[in-house]
Amino acid sequence: MNKLSKVKNIIVNGPQKLDCGKEISNFPIAYETYGNLNDQKDNAILIFHALTGDQFAAGKNPITNKDGWWSYALGPGKAIDTDKFFVICANVIGGCMGSYGPSTIDKNTNAQISTNFPVITINDMVNAQFNLLEHFKIEKLFAVIGGSMGGMQVLQFVSNFPDKAQIAVPIACTSSHSAQNIAFNELGRQAIMADANWKAGKYNEDKTNPDKGLSVARMAAHITYLSKKGLQEKFGRKLQESDDLKFSFDADFQIESYLRYQGSVFVDRFDANSYLYITRAMDYFDLSKQFDGNLSKAFENTKTKFFVISFTSDWLYPTSENREIVIALNAIGADVGFVEIESDKGHDSFLLDVPDFLETLGSYLKTNYINLNEKRI
Amino acid sequence: MNKLSKVKNIIVNGPQKLDCGKEISNFPIAYETYGNLNDQKDNAILIFHALTGDQFAAGKNPITNKDGWWSYALGPGKAIDTDKFFVICANVIGGCMGSYGPSTIDKNTNAQISTNFPVITINDMVNAQFNLLEHFKIEKLFAVIGGSMGGMQVLQFVSNFPDKAQIAVPIACTSSHSAQNIAFNELGRQAIMADANWKAGKYNEDKTNPDKGLSVARMAAHITYLSKKGLQEKFGRKLQESDDLKFSFDADFQIESYLRYQGSVFVDRFDANSYLYITRAMDYFDLSKQFDGNLSKAFENTKTKFFVISFTSDWLYPTSENREIVIALNAIGADVGFVEIESDKGHDSFLLDVPDFLETLGSYLKTNYINLNEKRI
Repeated sequence: MNKLSKVKNIIVNGPQKLDCGKEISNFPIAYETYGNLNDQKDNAILIFHALTGDQFAAGKNPITNKDGWWSYALGPGKAIDTDKFFVICANVIGGCMGSYGPSTIDKNTNAQISTNFPVITINDMVNAQFNLLEHFKIEKLFAVIGGSMGGMQVLQFVSNFPDKAQIAVPIACTSSHSAQNIAFNELGRQAIMADANWKAGKYNEDKTNPDKGLSVARMAAHITYLSKKGLQEKFGRKLQESDDLKFSFDADFQIESYLRYQGSVFVDRFDANSYLYITRAMDYFDLSKQFDGNLSKAFENTKTKFFVISFTSDWLYPTSENREIVIALNAIGADVGFVEIESDKGHDSFLLDVPDFLETLGSYLKTNYINLNEKRI
Repeated sequence: MNKLSKVKNIIVNGPQKLDCGKEISNFPIAYETYGNLNDQKDNAILIFHALTGDQFAAGKNPITNKDGWWSYALGPGKAIDTDKFFVICANVIGGCMGSYGPSTIDKNTNAQISTNFPVITINDMVNAQFNLLEHFKIEKLFAVIGGSMGGMQVLQFVSNFPDKAQIAVPIACTSSHSAQNIAFNELGRQAIMADANWKAGKYNEDKTNPDKGLSVARMAAHITYLSKKGLQEKFGRKLQESDDLKFSFDADFQIESYLRYQGSVFVDRFDANSYLYITRAMDYFDLSKQFDGNLSKAFENTKTKFFVISFTSDWLYPTSENREIVIALNAIGADVGFVEIESDKGHDSFLLDVPDFLETLGSYLKTNYINLNEKRI
């Protein structure tokens, strides 16, 4: 984790009051930027990452040496065009890529904070990242964009800061985590906490990580990111090696090898305690509850223009849940567009090469930037 | 497990050749019966249990002291009416309720067979249970019935023994385990094998069971048994105790407590190695592959009358997969009925109090018994 000492960050003096009641001060927000901020400072986009994402949305992630998580959507000439826009992406608090989280070293004890880290919320994440606007002296963002948990942050951001973004694009998300969403996250948490190496979160003291539990958690999540149809078309019952079943508990089927692989590579880049904290924040997310059960009220003070995007085969945050956001916005006469993109790639569609999605997003951003700012780009 | 010495069983002399190539001999099949076999011996029904079921389908399970798994459907005056029918239910081989399985004690070593137990298939299970017909001197069953993995056994039974059942009722099942089905089972297996107490299956030697891993496996499976809508209506975001979030990793939401409870009670009644073996058998199930990819051929020699039942909200074995069985039967002009029952209880509908289902099943059995045997009951 020494590599993390090189990631860019700001130190937030605070104090920031968290939803749990505690205050945090002098904590780091790790971030990355793409493209250039123009003189008018009207071309800035803040993008929010999903559960296991980080600030390295495009280019090569210097920690993992893999492509950034949104390489399909973000870059020169792409949907979120870094030739035109200045894009900021921060690691959420609770994360493990340099922002304040359970793997941050407590200077007093020289050990990881681990489960002494406070339980945080999507609201806390968004409030922490807001400090980046001051850092870059940006009065108003052109856009806030994010998929999955990133979309939840988009919704929370506009609710908290109604005059700080011209447009908001929540993608494949929900305004309130459903029972099934909570169930899958709880499954992941129980898998981690069942690992004898988890040691009530203090695993770093012995340098023994709960890799097996975290791997199982990732496998469970991964199943929810793909559609049943997509899995069937990609893997079906194809065997991994031989023509015949092996009559053992080795990976006979390709889908088994795939899941095991997804689990094994994940533990190299992600911290188990961060997984606990971030899934908890997602489960706690219920924007309408913040407004006495009336989701429309979350947005009644904003002039921000919304564009909600869902995917046909997303069963984690299905179109019906995205549509609830649209309905709440329409109920107060907000400026809102909505599109359901045809895709068999499931929830992961927003991360993948889905041309209809990428073209739709790109056109929307480009057209609105021209129209809203009365300029050519 | 000493209680198991009291369960009824037959000893199959064999040898029975398994799909893996090995042979098994002198092994027990534990069974239970309900109702009375009539003099004509034409009123016998063989029901097959699902993944975690056993022979105690109705009444009080003497091992767990809980109601049998099919108490809603089976009993005097119920859909499978034990005032009229003689019902046999056996524990599958690979199971842990007295039939030959990984927890059977090897008399040579005085230890559990554990992972020396051969990897078995649905075909092996059905062939083993066929011995019960000889035991009861039943020439032809009135019906074979089962839901989920029980439905797979129904399909395999008719394919193997085309003249041994008048009617066959596969419920909420599939003729071939999908990639998503395999994925969820693999997740459960990995959770068990990730438990440090699993010890490559030899946990019984130290009397330390992989309860945490088995519990996580059960939680994962349980999510797939319920529908998203059903979960939302039953639990939604209801909190377990207090009015407010606890900002901890305790069970805040009722759905979390529910899943933890399901996991914890499961480990008291089920063996982790059995879970591995039986899920493996389900994943290996592909009836059409046994017939060169032509599912119709599986049934071309039978006069058995089929009645296929699916449930609207079952996303584990959705109606589309049940319908494939109907299509294959129709393609060879078989006598087949099909009904999709409206229910928001998900895959578990076949186990629960779903009146439309129970009435449909009951009427079908009663009417067909009268018609096929030209009698009044």
